[in-house]
Amino acid sequence: MNYREQSLIKHAQWKGKIETVCRVPVESREALSLAYTPGVAEPCMAIHNDAEKSFELTRRWNTVPVITDGTAVLGLGDIGPEAGMPVMEGKCALFKAFGNVDAYPICIKSKDTDEIINTIKLISGSFGGINLEDISAPRCFEIETRLKEELDIPVFHDDQHGTAIVMTAALINALKLSGKKKDAIKIVINGAGAAGIAIAKFLMLYGIKDVTLCDLKGIVCDGEEWLNPAQKEIAKVTNKPRLKGKLADAMRGADVFIGVSGPNCVTKDMVKSMADKPILFPCANPVPEISPQDALDAGAFIVGTGSSEYPNQINNVLVFPGLFRGALDVRANTVNTEMMVAAAKGIADCVTDNQLARDYILPYAYDKAAHKSVAKAVAEAAIKSGAAKIKP
Amino acid sequence: MNYREQSLIKHAQWKGKIETVCRVPVESREALSLAYTPGVAEPCMAIHNDAEKSFELTRRWNTVPVITDGTAVLGLGDIGPEAGMPVMEGKCALFKAFGNVDAYPICIKSKDTDEIINTIKLISGSFGGINLEDISAPRCFEIETRLKEELDIPVFHDDQHGTAIVMTAALINALKLSGKKKDAIKIVINGAGAAGIAIAKFLMLYGIKDVTLCDLKGIVCDGEEWLNPAQKEIAKVTNKPRLKGKLADAMRGADVFIGVSGPNCVTKDMVKSMADKPILFPCANPVPEISPQDALDAGAFIVGTGSSEYPNQINNVLVFPGLFRGALDVRANTVNTEMMVAAAKGIADCVTDNQLARDYILPYAYDKAAHKSVAKAVAEAAIKSGAAKIKP
Repeated sequence: MNYREQSLIKHAQWKGKIETVCRVPVESREALSLAYTPGVAEPCMAIHNDAEKSFELTRRWNTVPVITDGTAVLGLGDIGPEAGMPVMEGKCALFKAFGNVDAYPICIKSKDTDEIINTIKLISGSFGGINLEDISAPRCFEIETRLKEELDIPVFHDDQHGTAIVMTAALINALKLSGKKKDAIKIVINGAGAAGIAIAKFLMLYGIKDVTLCDLKGIVCDGEEWLNPAQKEIAKVTNKPRLKGKLADAMRGADVFIGVSGPNCVTKDMVKSMADKPILFPCANPVPEISPQDALDAGAFIVGTGSSEYPNQINNVLVFPGLFRGALDVRANTVNTEMMVAAAKGIADCVTDNQLARDYILPYAYDKAAHKSVAKAVAEAAIKSGAAKIKP
Repeated sequence: MNYREQSLIKHAQWKGKIETVCRVPVESREALSLAYTPGVAEPCMAIHNDAEKSFELTRRWNTVPVITDGTAVLGLGDIGPEAGMPVMEGKCALFKAFGNVDAYPICIKSKDTDEIINTIKLISGSFGGINLEDISAPRCFEIETRLKEELDIPVFHDDQHGTAIVMTAALINALKLSGKKKDAIKIVINGAGAAGIAIAKFLMLYGIKDVTLCDLKGIVCDGEEWLNPAQKEIAKVTNKPRLKGKLADAMRGADVFIGVSGPNCVTKDMVKSMADKPILFPCANPVPEISPQDALDAGAFIVGTGSSEYPNQINNVLVFPGLFRGALDVRANTVNTEMMVAAAKGIADCVTDNQLARDYILPYAYDKAAHKSVAKAVAEAAIKSGAAKIKP
């Protein structure tokens, strides 16, 4: 029986991967008078007089909804908000287990950008931060951008930035092993959707000079007719040699391949055409762009995938629990670039020079020390960059 | 130090009365593959193929948001959504402690009826039921009515029906003690807002013939100029003698006084003007319409209040945990009258004839057996009335 079949059985037994518990005594007259009426009137009025107090007198300080519209769930596409729920609940379970964040899943039955933004804004007063999840491009860009502008709590679209951060962490350590320098390598990203574009932007912020995106239609190049608005924008700052053609053309001579696209679109020949010591991160889920064995057989120096079934799992599970833990701990009013770069370095730093190996470039997704390291790095970066409202 | 001062200190120590926990193993490669990717794709697709499966494969079956716009919080009025949070969280804590329901607080920053309805509809796919809370009249009527029409999960505005149900439970046992019959008594309700009108409607459904409502402006009488739309409607079926005047006029000769209004508006003389063995439920929070001692001094046979500081606390805490437990257990598609009457009887039945006394007409709010009794009665009524989708 494979993971998917087993998982279905487990989900039917679990009947939910998270649960709400009561943290206070309520089982006596006196206890009820403190936790509920009449006593509760006083904390209510304290918040009424100073809304910031909602972070001190309720669970708001530790609460983050995992919000989706169900349009880009895993590799499954637009399966609708209810069907996305097992993923959102899984995310909430991981938020708690690895970040001690109280998360709950909220599925919004709408595909209208304005309606999704408005719904989230209207309920945002209950939360310490907002985790957007599995919302398809280009909607996700505007939703995140506008929410970041309009809310003063951290807003984070995990599919874009979580993926970009963990990918960069993997790259940092892969470069260390291969001896290549970040400002002298050529990176090809296949998949020019939300994740691909976010990875490209983030890698450039991190200091990579030569990034080229590809999509099903070919290489993303400034001036191509078929580009959508987000691709047009990224085309201006990527692919500086103005390379045209297909993925195979882009990969020729590249040092790094990053895949956030679909199954089996990379051949052994393409790997052989890459530069010396090629690094491949084929992260399509559930089937990667090329199997790790095929990539290694074709001469790959390091391979990482999105799957836990191979070594070097490049999983954004390594990012979001610690990132939000750090942001919440210092009451950050946003998630800025400094915090995200700190998260990437925080993850990479968890692998010591002694541990670092071609099949161990990232800590395991369930490594609690890694999540703590991310939280610490993010909190420090928030303080240094002026995003923190309190110091822990 | 009083309850309110103590409560503020406690809330600052607690930093939240509820918490989300992870119910599944995630701390190994294999565990992650089942609870999260790649395994989770299978339950997602199962729900995509049959949305009902979201009640079996996620926590939806046990999850209820406590939703407010913060416009009618306790006796505090319109203090805004964030300031209502300590009450909502308290409610969630009680949902769990007494009903084992996973509840979470959601505050909507809007006072627009359509916007509130739309927001709730858009997120309803994540929940097994909806508990509306502390939304002011007349908005609350339309919000509940339209959500009940448009959603196929239980929707329940606790301030209206929770109060009505527990009040009726108190009345059932008070009548038993006093020897009065439900179809031969005269009831006066002071406060013609959401709760008062809901109580009037529910008492009539239960079989009370003579109900009269009062408000600050006087007795609610068909034809009065100052009535709002909800009051106009209820005026047609209450106050059949077409009594006009003030509260004192309404109370003359009445068997039962129910207060959901404000502090200290009932005098000893008014109590003395009532029928033999008068029953008084002055439930204004935090200060009742008349103090229990004054009412007893003036000849009251039975007194119940909303407060836990006196005997006979008439608290809707006795209702909502068991009511939702029962409704969720049978996947009820609504909360109908039969289920609500069953809840009232379920509460009243928890006090045995041996226990029943003038200062013990209701079980304690923290009596777990009472909540179980409510859940059982509601589930049975849901099945009998055709509202249940499954049998437990």
